[in-house]
Parts: sequence; C-alpha cells; structure tokens
Amino acid sequence: MPELRKDPIIDRWVIISTERGQRPIFLAEEPPPPKPGALCPLCPGNEAMTPPEVFAIRPSSISYPENGSNWTLRVVPNKFPALRIEGELDKEGVGLFDRMNGVGAHEVIVETPIHSQTLALMDVPSIQNVFRAYRERTFDLLGDKRFKFIMIFKNQGSVAGASLDHSHSQLIALPIVPRRIHEEISGALQYYKYKDRCVFCDIIAQESEDNLRVVYQNDTFVAISPFASRFPFEVWVLPKAHVASFTKDGDNYLALSEVVSVVLKKHNKLLGAVPYNYLIHTAPVDLMDIPYYHWHLEIIPRLTKTAGFEWGTGFYINPTPPEEATIYMREAEV
Amino acid sequence: MPELRKDPIIDRWVIISTERGQRPIFLAEEPPPPKPGALCPLCPGNEAMTPPEVFAIRPSSISYPENGSNWTLRVVPNKFPALRIEGELDKEGVGLFDRMNGVGAHEVIVETPIHSQTLALMDVPSIQNVFRAYRERTFDLLGDKRFKFIMIFKNQGSVAGASLDHSHSQLIALPIVPRRIHEEISGALQYYKYKDRCVFCDIIAQESEDNLRVVYQNDTFVAISPFASRFPFEVWVLPKAHVASFTKDGDNYLALSEVVSVVLKKHNKLLGAVPYNYLIHTAPVDLMDIPYYHWHLEIIPRLTKTAGFEWGTGFYINPTPPEEATIYMREAEV
Repeated sequence: MPELRKDPIIDRWVIISTERGQRPIFLAEEPPPPKPGALCPLCPGNEAMTPPEVFAIRPSSISYPENGSNWTLRVVPNKFPALRIEGELDKEGVGLFDRMNGVGAHEVIVETPIHSQTLALMDVPSIQNVFRAYRERTFDLLGDKRFKFIMIFKNQGSVAGASLDHSHSQLIALPIVPRRIHEEISGALQYYKYKDRCVFCDIIAQESEDNLRVVYQNDTFVAISPFASRFPFEVWVLPKAHVASFTKDGDNYLALSEVVSVVLKKHNKLLGAVPYNYLIHTAPVDLMDIPYYHWHLEIIPRLTKTAGFEWGTGFYINPTPPEEATIYMREAEV
Repeated sequence: MPELRKDPIIDRWVIISTERGQRPIFLAEEPPPPKPGALCPLCPGNEAMTPPEVFAIRPSSISYPENGSNWTLRVVPNKFPALRIEGELDKEGVGLFDRMNGVGAHEVIVETPIHSQTLALMDVPSIQNVFRAYRERTFDLLGDKRFKFIMIFKNQGSVAGASLDHSHSQLIALPIVPRRIHEEISGALQYYKYKDRCVFCDIIAQESEDNLRVVYQNDTFVAISPFASRFPFEVWVLPKAHVASFTKDGDNYLALSEVVSVVLKKHNKLLGAVPYNYLIHTAPVDLMDIPYYHWHLEIIPRLTKTAGFEWGTGFYINPTPPEEATIYMREAEV
C-alpha cells in the first residue's frame, strides 16, 4: 500500500511507494527505449495488456463489446498506480509526523487508437471526446466520498515524464485537496473579499484591454501567456464566463477543444514536437459553485530545466518574456 | 534589465528576462556539447573569460596577484546573470499585476581549479573552503540593504541544470524573501507558538530516537532521509544544535564538510556520478537569530522527472521509501 506523508514544516504531501523499490543503480539509469516491434499496451488489439476499461467511446452505429478493439477513446485504471483504490485512509500521527494510507484512483485516458497520433494532430471533435471522458470519469469518481480532488493532467514526451509514447492523459483522485489548488483558492478568496470580484475574471478583462498577452480566443475561451509566466511559451486557457468547475462547463468543450488545438498546433509549429505538460485546475469537489475561483487549463512546454534555484526558492527564471512569446504564437499560422 | 513579476493569484515571483530572447526553435534544441578542446571559462589560465573575481582563496605562503591563475577557489559575478546588480527596485503596479526591476547579485563559486574534480571527490578541507566562500560572499552582500535573502545552491550535471562541467555553485541575492523560505518560516513559527520548541530540533530528536532515517552523523551535524522525502535518496544535513542562520555556524564548517562529503560519496557509490542539486535554507537577513528556524542543506539527486501531476498539485511521487534509501546509504562504505 502506498503511503501519503506530510512534511512537518510546510503543508506538502508526498506519495511514498512502500512496495520494495528498485535497486539504486537502476534508478540512476535511463529506462531502455522500447524494443522495435514491442507491443504498445495502449494500441487497439492489446486491450488485455491493461486492466479492463472503465469508460470508452465507440462508434455508435452498432453495438460493440466492452474491452474489444473497436474504440476511439478508452479509459483504464493505471497498471502501476501511484495510489490504490482499496482501503480506508487510516490517518495517523507518528510522533510529530502525519501519514495516511495512499488511497485514491489513478486512471489512464487513451486519447486515440492511432499510435502515432498526438493531440496537436487530432481534429477538434476528437479532442472534445478527451474532455468529455475527463468529465465522465470525474462524475463517476465523485460518488466516492473518500476523494476530495480529481487532478487531470497530461505528460507528452519522455522529457515531460511520459513513460509510454501512445498519446494519453491521466487522472488521479486524491483524498486531500492539493497544496497548489489550496493556495490558488486562498489567494482568489482573499482577492474576492477585498474586491468582490473573481481575480481570474479581472485578469481576463485586463488582458483583453492590454492585448499584449492574448494568444488566441474564440467566443467562449481565451488563451493567454500569463503575466508571470514561469516557463517560455506557457499558456493558460480560461473560459471567458465565470465557471469554477471544469465539469460544470461541459456544454463548451467543443469551443475549449478548438482553442487547445490551435495553441498546441502553434507550439508545434514554433517549437517542433515539443514535450509538454498540461493540467486542469478546477474547484474542489465541495466548492464547485464558488464565485471566486475560475477553472483553467495550464499548458507548459518543457524547454527549460528546473534546478537548485527553483527547488530552493519556489521562484522561476523565465528567459522568454510572455509578451514576446505572444507575438511569436500569434504570428504562427496553423 | 530583467524584471521580477508576481503572480496575481498566489504569492509566486518569476524572474523574466527582458533582453530579447532566443528564437523559439533554438529554445527547443539541446545546447550543443562544448567542442573538444574548447576552453573552460572556469579553468586556471582563463580568468579573463569571466568578470573579475570578487573573492578568492590562494595559497597563503606568498602573495599572489588578484585574478591571477594561482587560486584554489574563486568567486566571480555570473557572466549571464539572472538579476542585475545596478539600479533601484522601482516597485510598481500594472493594473492588477505587480512588478519590480530585477535587481540582485548572481555569483559563481568555482570550487576547485581542477576541471575534472567534483565535490564528491574533493577532500574535506577543500569542501570547507567552499562553505567559507559562501559565508564571506553573504556577509559582503548583506551590506547592500536592497537584498532580503541570499540563496546558495549547486547544480551538478546537465540534467540538474548545470551549463558548465567545471564544478561550481551559485549565489543569488534577492530583493524579496522567496516563497519556499517564507513557507518554512511560517510553518516553523506556527509550531513554535504551539510547542515553544523549534520543529527542526524536534525532528532531529525524533529521528535520533527512531533511528530509521539517520544516514550519517558526527558530533555536530546529522544527515537524514526526510520522513516526507520528495525524491529518492533525498538527504537533509542539519546542525544538531539550534542555529537559524548558515552564516552564524561558521565554526562548524569542517564538521559540516565531513558530513556532506560522506553523503555525496555514498550517493556516488550507489548511484554513479548522479546529477544533483543542493541548496541552503537559512533564516532571512532580518531574522538571523530567531528561535524557531533552523538552517539546513537539502541534497536532491535527480533520478525522477517532475511531470504534470507535480506541477499541478505541488504533491510529489517518490518511488523509494526514505527508510529503504537509508539502509542502502548506511551500507554503502566510503
């Protein structure tokens, strides 16, 4: 059973695998690249290599069997989960330390049946299916009262932490609201108490006015280079209207997909097949309708390395001003 | 002039380079490895390739000229500084955003004249010189009232962010106390208010008692695998007696160097010439004698990749329990 442990000085949780780890020297070596011709566990026909599906999208004309090969999108439990679905939390103190069992869900969203496909190459309705799948799985997992937050994220490329080439994203249901979300909610609440307005709504208004960092927009969503971008070509995608929770914005996923698609294509045009992470920041389960938080998707191309300074300070050094990144991204035709 | 910008939602500062950045596609490419036979700017004889030294340790028997080649340790301003030493902060609001000029100092501590040397291979008195240099430079920079915190860190190996092979560490003087330090100080203060004791002192006491995560110790310093280690084989080195500030612990740098040397040698034995970061967490300039904070050095081998989950949550996933890492490190004879 993995364990959740809390740092006794700051409110930082860590998932510790308590299965016997690898010998140290193996940790230090790059995992070998998959052998040519090796089977991809996420490709159609290899469904038996993953746990059984928990959700799938199949062509609707005829009825296809579950776990068969005829799918356009598939969600399966992670075969090597960071957290385990079984068991109780069993929170306890160990002297001045705090721990609980590593209870949670860890799922893999296989975004496409085509091995060489990526989100940047997919059409907009196929990307919409990915967001639909996130929502379906979130609703299902929210039935489990042990879970306080559903984190959805994507690692594209091995530099960005992907261990499989086949395009996929991940979902982790957590028994605690993570620190980053807690900080954003607290900061946004503080602003709301002072101004009686959502800070994200105000940012969108100012960015539209300044027009220095708006990368792309349609009627419903806007993509901006944040004023305090941590990374070169970082982009946040936000709904223009105030919506606290990603799952409550389902009617607009087609418009969302269009903006995400354009941003990823622009990144690819400017930066090649750049490794990236994206992540969805959304209101926690218990706070889905709050007036002060505003869900958004953060896209982080992995062009720079984090090093001692970033670890030590929580500061970031960004060599590309977001205004300059915006000019490049606006000009990139896709 | 670089710029310091604050995220409007959470208290996160970013250093934005406002010099014209590189074209996007160059950012996406790995920098080419140095040509064989290319001059190392940190090697003796190439002193003219760096800005003039601000501190050096030379053999004491005779008097050697400044900026000459006869040195055992040398500190120079960074040729490509993240922050600039000239100018005023000029804090200002831009709508709802906050910015100030990127004023600060950025120095490079060249730890050895020998190009192929590393801290793990150096003798203990030479490592002591490195810590002495950190203190000398800190005292000098503290004379400048614009600076609120001196961050000292080391990137070893290109995976850990080092752009030069020659063994060196870095110092950045900052006009604000960084977020990570602020969080640790706040957390420690909260504990102190409740218990009237330093949380770090209590951790050291419990770790000595439990004896599950003590990697190595001498009379003055202890190296532990933290209970909530974020990374495999992460080690914190702490003074056993309560000292808030690194610079106030100068009499004990020889003992500190012995512990650091042993830990780095153990890492190398277990993990090969593993890339790593280390960083010194110390009380800010204005709080050097506080009873609730305890300086320490964090050593982070770079074996795992941070990905979307870590960026999105501030959570870490560590595949190696610290108790297991401790057993390996204790057993590694050096």
